[in-house]
Amino acid sequence: MSKIRVSEIFGPTIQGEGALIGEPTVFVRTGGCDYRCSWCDSLHAVDSDYRADWLPMDAYEIFEKIIKLSKGKPLTVSLSGGNPAIQDFGPLIEMGKKQGYRFALETQGSITQDWFKDLDLLILSPKPPSSDQVVDWDAFEACVRAAQQARTAMKIVIFDDEDYRWAKGVADRYSSLPLYIQPGNHTPPPPDEPDARIDMQGILDRMEWLVDKTLNDGWFAPRILPQLHVLLWGNKRGV
Amino acid sequence: MSKIRVSEIFGPTIQGEGALIGEPTVFVRTGGCDYRCSWCDSLHAVDSDYRADWLPMDAYEIFEKIIKLSKGKPLTVSLSGGNPAIQDFGPLIEMGKKQGYRFALETQGSITQDWFKDLDLLILSPKPPSSDQVVDWDAFEACVRAAQQARTAMKIVIFDDEDYRWAKGVADRYSSLPLYIQPGNHTPPPPDEPDARIDMQGILDRMEWLVDKTLNDGWFAPRILPQLHVLLWGNKRGV
Ligand code: SF4
Ligand code: SF4
Repeated sequence: MSKIRVSEIFGPTIQGEGALIGEPTVFVRTGGCDYRCSWCDSLHAVDSDYRADWLPMDAYEIFEKIIKLSKGKPLTVSLSGGNPAIQDFGPLIEMGKKQGYRFALETQGSITQDWFKDLDLLILSPKPPSSDQVVDWDAFEACVRAAQQARTAMKIVIFDDEDYRWAKGVADRYSSLPLYIQPGNHTPPPPDEPDARIDMQGILDRMEWLVDKTLNDGWFAPRILPQLHVLLWGNKRGV
Repeated sequence: MSKIRVSEIFGPTIQGEGALIGEPTVFVRTGGCDYRCSWCDSLHAVDSDYRADWLPMDAYEIFEKIIKLSKGKPLTVSLSGGNPAIQDFGPLIEMGKKQGYRFALETQGSITQDWFKDLDLLILSPKPPSSDQVVDWDAFEACVRAAQQARTAMKIVIFDDEDYRWAKGVADRYSSLPLYIQPGNHTPPPPDEPDARIDMQGILDRMEWLVDKTLNDGWFAPRILPQLHVLLWGNKRGV
């Protein structure tokens, strides 16, 4: 069985963002990403400097850890990264679903896997201009198609006016997908200092900016949500 | 056309609680309630001392105001109170839906209306022991039935261990309804001082208490959400 490079497995805690906000969740964060977003808040799972911390685990080992954390009671497992779509989660999802666990995956939409169709929720999070990445829309489209009947939602992080305009364009193109927008965290934790203090007022201000901008603009399609875990617990990791 | 007693109409802002958290919403809050919860955070829409502030409006007048606030762009309208189920919202819902508006109603589940079936979302919020109210479960059951095909969710506010145990019992009874639990606001705004400062640390502590308690207990059925508008904007009304 192929190995998955795991940066961290933690929980249960509540999902802090997007479509599953508030949902009791165990997180499996994988190491490695084909992107390098300028404001990445998960550098410890992206930068190859931290590669030594990524443990190769097979589906059995991961599921054992999930069962231990959840005391064997089925819940939602969130697969994140890095880009978790790099890994082969097919066997884990199959194994977990048999015991009632549900699986959500969040990815930027650059890499497709045929097991996307087995997810309970696929969250596609295309990266806006401020990330300095360029979206390959054919690859993104392939992800949407691979999801087949799996529930799919879109999440876009917005830092500035340009991101906002871009998000509206993407939303028009994929108007059938439920959309969640969230203000960017301009003070992500440095990877070596996961508990660094954050600029809470700045985070609140950016949320207010995004809410005001969207609503004054009469754009009522997206839900607008902050990173709840940051509001509740700062940048602290593993909660 | 019958009149609806309106305490306030405001928005668009984002929904701060429960199933529609983050959703752009115009709120119609009605005056009058058949309950007197010990910790009611909407006394200005409950206590008859404020009756003089409740404007009798018909469906046309209310819809006109909703259209003005939303600049004619359809969005979600949240009917709240007090107990909005006391009023006759049938004509407003019919009128609004024709133009693409969606309607959600939140009620404690003590009074049924046949127009519940026309809602896009019925949120039933039975009040736990700490409210000092006694739930009439036959009346509650009638609300669930009246919803028919309308999407229905349950929201329970939890102040203490007794409320928590009670919520679990209710959840077992209505296990098919999506459940949202939220910590109580122990510092609701006095009705004459809507912008009174709040005990933010206490609110964060209660959220942490509820998350820890629920997850340590292995109860993964409910989503656990704070009152987001309180975290973002304190007790300030009309945002
Ligand atoms: S796609 Fe996500 S994990 Fe990868 S660099 Fe961008 S923000 Fe970081
Ligand atoms: S049911 Fe709601 S509005 Fe009525 S008294 Fe209780 S908390 Fe207040």
